[in-house]
Amino acid sequence: MVSKNQIKLITSIQHKKYRQEHQLFIAEGVKVIQELLQSNFVLEHLFVTEAIFEQVNNAQKTVVKEQDMKRISALSSPSSCLALFKIPAPSTINDNGLIVALDDIRDPGNLGTIIRLCDWFGITQLLCSSETVDVYNPKVIQATMGSIARVNVNYVDLKAFILNSPLPVYGTFMDGNNIYKEELPKECILILGNEANGISSELQKLAKNKIAIPRFGTLQQTESLNVATATAILLSEFRRNS
Amino acid sequence: MVSKNQIKLITSIQHKKYRQEHQLFIAEGVKVIQELLQSNFVLEHLFVTEAIFEQVNNAQKTVVKEQDMKRISALSSPSSCLALFKIPAPSTINDNGLIVALDDIRDPGNLGTIIRLCDWFGITQLLCSSETVDVYNPKVIQATMGSIARVNVNYVDLKAFILNSPLPVYGTFMDGNNIYKEELPKECILILGNEANGISSELQKLAKNKIAIPRFGTLQQTESLNVATATAILLSEFRRNS
Repeated sequence: MVSKNQIKLITSIQHKKYRQEHQLFIAEGVKVIQELLQSNFVLEHLFVTEAIFEQVNNAQKTVVKEQDMKRISALSSPSSCLALFKIPAPSTINDNGLIVALDDIRDPGNLGTIIRLCDWFGITQLLCSSETVDVYNPKVIQATMGSIARVNVNYVDLKAFILNSPLPVYGTFMDGNNIYKEELPKECILILGNEANGISSELQKLAKNKIAIPRFGTLQQTESLNVATATAILLSEFRRNS
Repeated sequence: MVSKNQIKLITSIQHKKYRQEHQLFIAEGVKVIQELLQSNFVLEHLFVTEAIFEQVNNAQKTVVKEQDMKRISALSSPSSCLALFKIPAPSTINDNGLIVALDDIRDPGNLGTIIRLCDWFGITQLLCSSETVDVYNPKVIQATMGSIARVNVNYVDLKAFILNSPLPVYGTFMDGNNIYKEELPKECILILGNEANGISSELQKLAKNKIAIPRFGTLQQTESLNVATATAILLSEFRRNS
């Protein structure tokens, strides 16, 4: 049974303001919740539908009716389980290795997909500008498919961080060097820009190493790649020879 | 002014059944519509809001109120324009070069993103199994960002096509060969599998060349990549040395 107050709390924390107030976030779906339970995230509450209630072995579980799950879910097709986890204190930044820096990524699906890619490519540190979408947005958590448990995400002043770091800085530009012909370092900061506007002019100046993913084909009219697919190609290139 | 009958028609063709009946599909947003207008697609009708009506130079334009645009749009944040285009007759399949074959891709965003990737990497032929989401679904058209104008998409019996083709067949498998160490051909069929289940067992047997994108990092717990990001990495590898 889920109380009216719980419904109110859960729907409120779909919004950043209330997530910050309550220091809680929502995770949905068996796979994502399982991965978070196996990590350092602290479970606050677990709601499961009658259909799978018997299969779930967790002391904090509460059974909910399917129509209530629809009310508390942020998804258009609700899963059989929804959990509330505590937002952890920000962890210390790993300031070495390959660091991915997101300059104003707005789409929750893109941020979640990039976190999943970082996890796949063994990148443990992701930095986000303060304008980047909140990592605890339910759609971000959903798109990470649990990878959020293994990637450090910190919101920082990217300019200040870069100016204080000895690492070389890479960014993608239309007229950058062909990434397939570049010798890429094992340690650096790789900046990825906003979906519509690319890397901000302030950070462009700091990205001394300008790279580009070449286009193929005869027409050459495709304007751009989606930032998540561009990230996939870039991380693959940074890792393939390491 | 948009009539009640037009609203009924437009909302109906958000569904495949009515798209097939009327042989029309919806495109939304300035960029997507512009790309389609510059291609061989035939415009049936163009609806624009008052805000941009004067800027649009097209004889088939109709002005609509913003609240009507909300009613006819398939997007949660409607654009300032929406167009109906005729569904073209299926074009002849280009049976050479690098051909991408989708085995039961269900997510419209994934299909649209894969079409945009094909366009970027100069791949002109995409084959879809009959279970793959309809390419004229409004969310697919949206995610292609106009690339649909430059990529041939055909729905075929993949098994029959592959058995009749002399091209080598590649597919991704957990235990496949490291793609970074493979010598990849310029011409082949590359099969991409369903989001949840991968490549169907029937097609697995036909994919004689088994490849894999290596995982990095120490934890190695990431289960899989999203099919669109996996496609990005695979196409980049197939093209980088060509």
